[in-house]
Amino acid sequence: MNFADRLLAAIDEKGTPALVGIDPRYESLPRALRPDDSPSRLEAARALAEFGSRIIDVVAPLVPAVKPNLAFYEAFGFEGCRAFEETVAHAKRKGLIVIADAKRGDIGPTAEAYARAVFDVVDADAVTLNPYLGLDSLAPFFARVPDGKGCFLLVKTSNPSSKDLQDLPLGAGKVYDAVAALVRSWAEPHVGARGWSAVGAVVGATFPEQAAALRAAMPRTPFLLPGYGAQGGKADALRRAFAADGRGAIVNSSRGIIFAFAEEAYRERYGEDRWEEAVRQATLAMRADLARILPHTGPEA
Amino acid sequence: MNFADRLLAAIDEKGTPALVGIDPRYESLPRALRPDDSPSRLEAARALAEFGSRIIDVVAPLVPAVKPNLAFYEAFGFEGCRAFEETVAHAKRKGLIVIADAKRGDIGPTAEAYARAVFDVVDADAVTLNPYLGLDSLAPFFARVPDGKGCFLLVKTSNPSSKDLQDLPLGAGKVYDAVAALVRSWAEPHVGARGWSAVGAVVGATFPEQAAALRAAMPRTPFLLPGYGAQGGKADALRRAFAADGRGAIVNSSRGIIFAFAEEAYRERYGEDRWEEAVRQATLAMRADLARILPHTGPEA
Repeated sequence: MNFADRLLAAIDEKGTPALVGIDPRYESLPRALRPDDSPSRLEAARALAEFGSRIIDVVAPLVPAVKPNLAFYEAFGFEGCRAFEETVAHAKRKGLIVIADAKRGDIGPTAEAYARAVFDVVDADAVTLNPYLGLDSLAPFFARVPDGKGCFLLVKTSNPSSKDLQDLPLGAGKVYDAVAALVRSWAEPHVGARGWSAVGAVVGATFPEQAAALRAAMPRTPFLLPGYGAQGGKADALRRAFAADGRGAIVNSSRGIIFAFAEEAYRERYGEDRWEEAVRQATLAMRADLARILPHTGPEA
Repeated sequence: MNFADRLLAAIDEKGTPALVGIDPRYESLPRALRPDDSPSRLEAARALAEFGSRIIDVVAPLVPAVKPNLAFYEAFGFEGCRAFEETVAHAKRKGLIVIADAKRGDIGPTAEAYARAVFDVVDADAVTLNPYLGLDSLAPFFARVPDGKGCFLLVKTSNPSSKDLQDLPLGAGKVYDAVAALVRSWAEPHVGARGWSAVGAVVGATFPEQAAALRAAMPRTPFLLPGYGAQGGKADALRRAFAADGRGAIVNSSRGIIFAFAEEAYRERYGEDRWEEAVRQATLAMRADLARILPHTGPEA
């Protein structure tokens, strides 16, 4: 089954396009999970795995997908990489779609090895990729579309410095417009039964005007919208990153969900001891926020 | 000591700017190291670690640096990641500069985690990075220059599809020219005692004309030139990727060295049993080839 069809079905089932980013910065974990400020790599990795599993247990009934970022695991070496594998496996057992946030990009034979790493070793459903090296660096991932795998190519990222290269003027538009045109052509052969491609795009929720323009430029490309919540992206501004029928995008929140216990809105009410309830409330709040702009979704779990 | 100063000193000491890329595709290993065609992840990882150590033992007296690529290790999960760590540690013990070929690129807080992974967990001396996300994605790596760390930013990669995005016309040049201008400005604050920056650039040896133009565009930026050898890059064409005094670049060969036993030039003479001697001869041949174009280096080990 095409990845886009699977993703849309999961969004329908859960009634929301909310995506939870698992970016487990060790220093930010609830105190109960990190008794040591100077942990060994193994201790830190165990804490990341425990934290990830508990996040997943809370959000699995509420969202279609999670997006763990490999960097926070690699920061603790191979022990951390094992924790990443455990986290992905746990999310899969809970029925979640897993998008490995890896932002990989390398030449052909090397890209094959990365595709094997994310799709075979850890069995992620999709992966984020950097398009700077062009088609032959992406083809080994596209080749896995028949296996139900997908990818999201960076087009316009959510960070302030995305302007440095992505916003340079090129032709009638910007560099990211040219990348969007490439992604559109690369995505076309991988369109599934419901009209959306297994080849998606990362478009920062922090740049809603650009996201709206990019929606028109890549009409069959699912968007992964990072930057909602802690990075400042607002739901109302995001409506136009979706298609007219309210489909075609998933909205990611990482810190705003997983570290909700540290946010002003939840800190006093739940405190660090009840951090999982803060995760649940923050996820429900995000669902409700998105439901306002997307009539086909519902705020109730 | 600034990374560029360390790199230049190592090039002087070894008398060559040859760099050995360790891309250990399991299926290509000498038969004696891979008795099993369907290895467990642990068996495969052990084979990669053994292969890497033996490559390093052969080339350590002959070259200043090695460049292991993480993808081939990640293809065997956390066990593979452990083999990568062992390989880097072995190369460091042998006095080699280690460039982790990771091509990472992510937003600020995530980039910090990646910097920790490559510089603290595995103690690589430098890392390859993708510049598509701009300065804030690179700053956590630049912040490590005072620790002697360096990086090489992808400007014009060696693969055919590098044209897809990198060669699009932008202003008076191409996208890669604009990236070069950014790299030049980012590199300037990190220039060491010998006039070269700890912030380098990856420029494909497969595009010698572009490499020559980029040399002028980034006068203080060390180049990592991949694509020599198996990918078709020739030494003569590369001369202009170096500065007038023959400095400022390192030339990478991966398959042409580590899998030399499978190349026509060495297969019959050494065979698979004497694969290490093939590695040594291929490294010596590369040294001699580069010495022809660089008078300050010498072909003798």
